[in-house]
Amino acid sequence: MDLSTLSLGQYTFIANAFSFGLAVMAAATLFLWFSRSQVAPAYKMAVTISGLVTAIAAYHYLQIMLSWDAAFSVMNGNLEVTGYPFNQAYRYVDWLLTVPLLLIELILVMRLSRSETVSKSVWLGGAAALMIILGYPGEVAESAGTRFTFWVLSMIPFVYIVYQLVVGLKGSIGKQPENVRGLINGAATLVVISWLFYPIVFLFPLIGLTGGAAITAVEVGYTIADIVAKAVFGILILVIAMRKSEHEANAQA
Amino acid sequence: MDLSTLSLGQYTFIANAFSFGLAVMAAATLFLWFSRSQVAPAYKMAVTISGLVTAIAAYHYLQIMLSWDAAFSVMNGNLEVTGYPFNQAYRYVDWLLTVPLLLIELILVMRLSRSETVSKSVWLGGAAALMIILGYPGEVAESAGTRFTFWVLSMIPFVYIVYQLVVGLKGSIGKQPENVRGLINGAATLVVISWLFYPIVFLFPLIGLTGGAAITAVEVGYTIADIVAKAVFGILILVIAMRKSEHEANAQA
Repeated sequence: MDLSTLSLGQYTFIANAFSFGLAVMAAATLFLWFSRSQVAPAYKMAVTISGLVTAIAAYHYLQIMLSWDAAFSVMNGNLEVTGYPFNQAYRYVDWLLTVPLLLIELILVMRLSRSETVSKSVWLGGAAALMIILGYPGEVAESAGTRFTFWVLSMIPFVYIVYQLVVGLKGSIGKQPENVRGLINGAATLVVISWLFYPIVFLFPLIGLTGGAAITAVEVGYTIADIVAKAVFGILILVIAMRKSEHEANAQA
Repeated sequence: MDLSTLSLGQYTFIANAFSFGLAVMAAATLFLWFSRSQVAPAYKMAVTISGLVTAIAAYHYLQIMLSWDAAFSVMNGNLEVTGYPFNQAYRYVDWLLTVPLLLIELILVMRLSRSETVSKSVWLGGAAALMIILGYPGEVAESAGTRFTFWVLSMIPFVYIVYQLVVGLKGSIGKQPENVRGLINGAATLVVISWLFYPIVFLFPLIGLTGGAAITAVEVGYTIADIVAKAVFGILILVIAMRKSEHEANAQA
């Protein structure tokens, strides 16, 4: 990533996107945790973890914002690179924690049997962590060959997760109350679609997209994908938890 | 520890590990404290303390991160040592507080008789504090002989604690409800295994492991060991507390 190709306008636009990301994640965190009191005890953990994911993301957007700020200085209207590296790894550190938790949110809100909850959390969460760990050596590699090799390796758990979300959860979704089936399907689809952005962007440097416009597209695109996959998804989990709480209260009455 | 042997890549990797440690500890704290409402009153203190341990660790990882940042500067892609010392003592200050508390968590979640709870907390907690206090003079010593002497002294309470966890608690574990016996055994084993990392790393400088790769292994290794011993262990304590609360509610009904 050659930061010196950025214009002042692009630099500012990316800085604004990071600040937007921080504000959305922090606001989503507070909203989710305040709403915890409105779901039945069985769904509290799903909502707690939804807020935890956006809280962890808010922390990392703050770090990314500070690192972005330290990497540049502006002098008389000119953008200069300070030589202090922009730390892309904060994204990976964030994903390593949040991506397994996102899948666990979805599993918890489905309220499966204890053994199914544990086994699905371990398998899907483990595959998600593996996917991030395998992506990182490619991200920091100098050579295009290494980048591509780790992309391929990382896609193996990715495809496994997508398969599990699209096919593996189908049986369990059929057992959910009718008023949330569509929403749970929607949440699984949201994960799959928002996640597709990441492996595509990962390949940008390999096809020669490296200038200021490409950096802007990648950083702003990651921010939007993160907001959809974490904040929008988390709120969807909350809505499902609220509807199921309501449904179960009615069934008992 | 000769910091000038580090490469920029190693420096950044360690900084990322510290930031990861901070994020995990802070997230675990919030998760544990939010989940306090889901355990019976008898187990609230164990869960409160679990979150306290990760909160104290989060604070110290922030301090370690800031100290690491102050010890280096990056100029045009080159790493330079500022001469400001990296403060390793934060780890000892952290351990002095958290290691006795970790053992008390485990004792509290077992819900022994009051006199047993007090005596085991005093003996195990006291031994843990002594272990840390005896390790510190060795850590800051210039001579290899002093380092080794305090390692030996520190190993005495260490071996006592391991013995108590492996043998001394066996009788009390037998009295626990069947659905948590495996988990409590698992928690005791997790303590023993994650703790083994620390005395081994302490000996690294004595066998000549001091370069950039060794510093990276030690700092990243400590971070992983801390995460396992505090955050993973704390969540295991929460799960035990939730299962026991459930079991006791069923027994009463």
